[in-house]
Amino acid sequence: MPYNNKALQNKIDNKTKPPGSLGRLEEIALQVGLIQQSVHPKINHPHILVFAGDHGIAATSLVNPYPQAVTAQMVLNFINGGAAINVFCRQHNIQLRVIDAGVNANFGDIPISDGFIQAKIGYGTRNYLEEEAMSKEEVHTAIEKGKEILAAVHLSGCNCIGFGEMGIGNTSSAALIMSAITALPVEQCVGKGTGTNKEQLATKIKTLQKVYKKHSKATAHPLSAINLLRSFGGFEIAMMTGAYLEAAKRSMVIVVDGFICTAALMIAHIMDNKVLDNCLFAHTSGEKGHAKMLHYLDASPLLNLQLRLGEGTGAALAIPLIQSAVNFVEEMASFNTAGISNKE
Amino acid sequence: MPYNNKALQNKIDNKTKPPGSLGRLEEIALQVGLIQQSVHPKINHPHILVFAGDHGIAATSLVNPYPQAVTAQMVLNFINGGAAINVFCRQHNIQLRVIDAGVNANFGDIPISDGFIQAKIGYGTRNYLEEEAMSKEEVHTAIEKGKEILAAVHLSGCNCIGFGEMGIGNTSSAALIMSAITALPVEQCVGKGTGTNKEQLATKIKTLQKVYKKHSKATAHPLSAINLLRSFGGFEIAMMTGAYLEAAKRSMVIVVDGFICTAALMIAHIMDNKVLDNCLFAHTSGEKGHAKMLHYLDASPLLNLQLRLGEGTGAALAIPLIQSAVNFVEEMASFNTAGISNKE
Repeated sequence: MPYNNKALQNKIDNKTKPPGSLGRLEEIALQVGLIQQSVHPKINHPHILVFAGDHGIAATSLVNPYPQAVTAQMVLNFINGGAAINVFCRQHNIQLRVIDAGVNANFGDIPISDGFIQAKIGYGTRNYLEEEAMSKEEVHTAIEKGKEILAAVHLSGCNCIGFGEMGIGNTSSAALIMSAITALPVEQCVGKGTGTNKEQLATKIKTLQKVYKKHSKATAHPLSAINLLRSFGGFEIAMMTGAYLEAAKRSMVIVVDGFICTAALMIAHIMDNKVLDNCLFAHTSGEKGHAKMLHYLDASPLLNLQLRLGEGTGAALAIPLIQSAVNFVEEMASFNTAGISNKE
Repeated sequence: MPYNNKALQNKIDNKTKPPGSLGRLEEIALQVGLIQQSVHPKINHPHILVFAGDHGIAATSLVNPYPQAVTAQMVLNFINGGAAINVFCRQHNIQLRVIDAGVNANFGDIPISDGFIQAKIGYGTRNYLEEEAMSKEEVHTAIEKGKEILAAVHLSGCNCIGFGEMGIGNTSSAALIMSAITALPVEQCVGKGTGTNKEQLATKIKTLQKVYKKHSKATAHPLSAINLLRSFGGFEIAMMTGAYLEAAKRSMVIVVDGFICTAALMIAHIMDNKVLDNCLFAHTSGEKGHAKMLHYLDASPLLNLQLRLGEGTGAALAIPLIQSAVNFVEEMASFNTAGISNKE
């Protein structure tokens, strides 16, 4: 018998609570049921994959207050368990994997048992002020690598995935991608990122307006996901794009984090618009453009805590809410079994 | 040396993240630090106490779509582990206690090992359409009992408490209390509760307008917390009032749930306005009046999931966010220890 969402709705309505009184949690349960085609929605072995990559533009310091070297330093911080995403994943028993998608550093032989996956496409992208950030081959390799990593995680028993990212300069990539897709002018898409001051922000906007103008082929309609990634992308963004597509194909629940992760989703959405059916939006970021991205995607995020850290931290904080949604469906008593009087 | 919030702010700013990038979590960490007067904020053995009581008005069915008997039935559901609050407390390792503050049923000898506390003031309040809901003595006994229960929970090692409630008809009490304290007309404070339909809602509003008018002594300024509880209160609301006061006195973190719990807090606030310093607001309820209550208290809740179930479910879902806030302060590496470059 094909799956029917009404059966799950009935099951929810017979739980010992007034109908609808668990609000968004009921909607989440229904969406997960639909994704999994099951009246027994389940979250198994949730993972956060943090994709790290460097950006050519970041070497110029025109768009970023922190030096490029911080990307590699933070990767080591993830591996050593000292970053915010480590803390939240430990708290909620979420498996964390850090992927070197293209960091400008050599990490040697860190094993997967430390949560590390080596998938380097290059030592940072090229500077898009001067040329395309990536070659066509690099884009395709990154997308394929993202699919491959996702497939392995799925085969390990995971059915719920959140992505995070680390890459000094990558709010700039995300802003350029956002501008091309939403048709909002660059200055409305650029935010403070990791905390540029007023003067730095003006330079960031001016620089990115110049970049946007230079890559007129990439921003011409109809948009091509590959061309957008070539011009503006980061290795981590392209790899996430592939991972989103593969996660949707495998009927996984996708928990969408903040500004950069949503930009990668918008690219995946160009390639396959059904990817959104699998997405739950974790939070509205404090980064300026994110609320408008969410509006463009008609998304209603679960949290608004003014986070703007990246790393998948918003996704990690939202996963317990998704677990609560499936838990109530499976664990609560019904009016019948609990012997409770229904409405008069 | 007296506690200084600047030391905690410095500690937070030296964590490996851009300053302020954990948004509300940073504010929570600072508030918990201030409550505990410590640069090592901690959440120990969080508890949810669900206070249950019956309401005289509910026997008339003028304000409630579910029969009064549901209060007792739900208490047994809590004890058997089948309610939503059980599911969320299990998920997050929160200790749950159910208190019979005044349910119209006899529960026999259920032991504390089942999470049950017997503190019955009476078999439901009187019908405030005809007389005061409680006597002065009952109000005082309930408040004292609430303090006593809270003290015992604190002595068991708990420093973070959320309250929940169960009582058919208690959104009506909360609406009347809200109207008296905020000076908003009754009809702006009355919502659908557990799901009255349009016609039932009109009857609920008309009934409560009559009740409000009848108890003109209780609503005269300056307001008396005791008189408000006598006229409109429930045993569970009065007991929560005492529990709030004692929790604040003991420097505990208080997680405020929805409409009824916030009404009890507003009464506690009349008795001691410092109680708010200890409060974190879990969520904005889907029950109509709650957003205005929060506005009156100048509160910014953590979640908005359109919950309107009660039982402390919003508090249970918010406690993990508070734990995340104290966890990042204690567990994250600093720029120094992780060898990460700070801003240029």
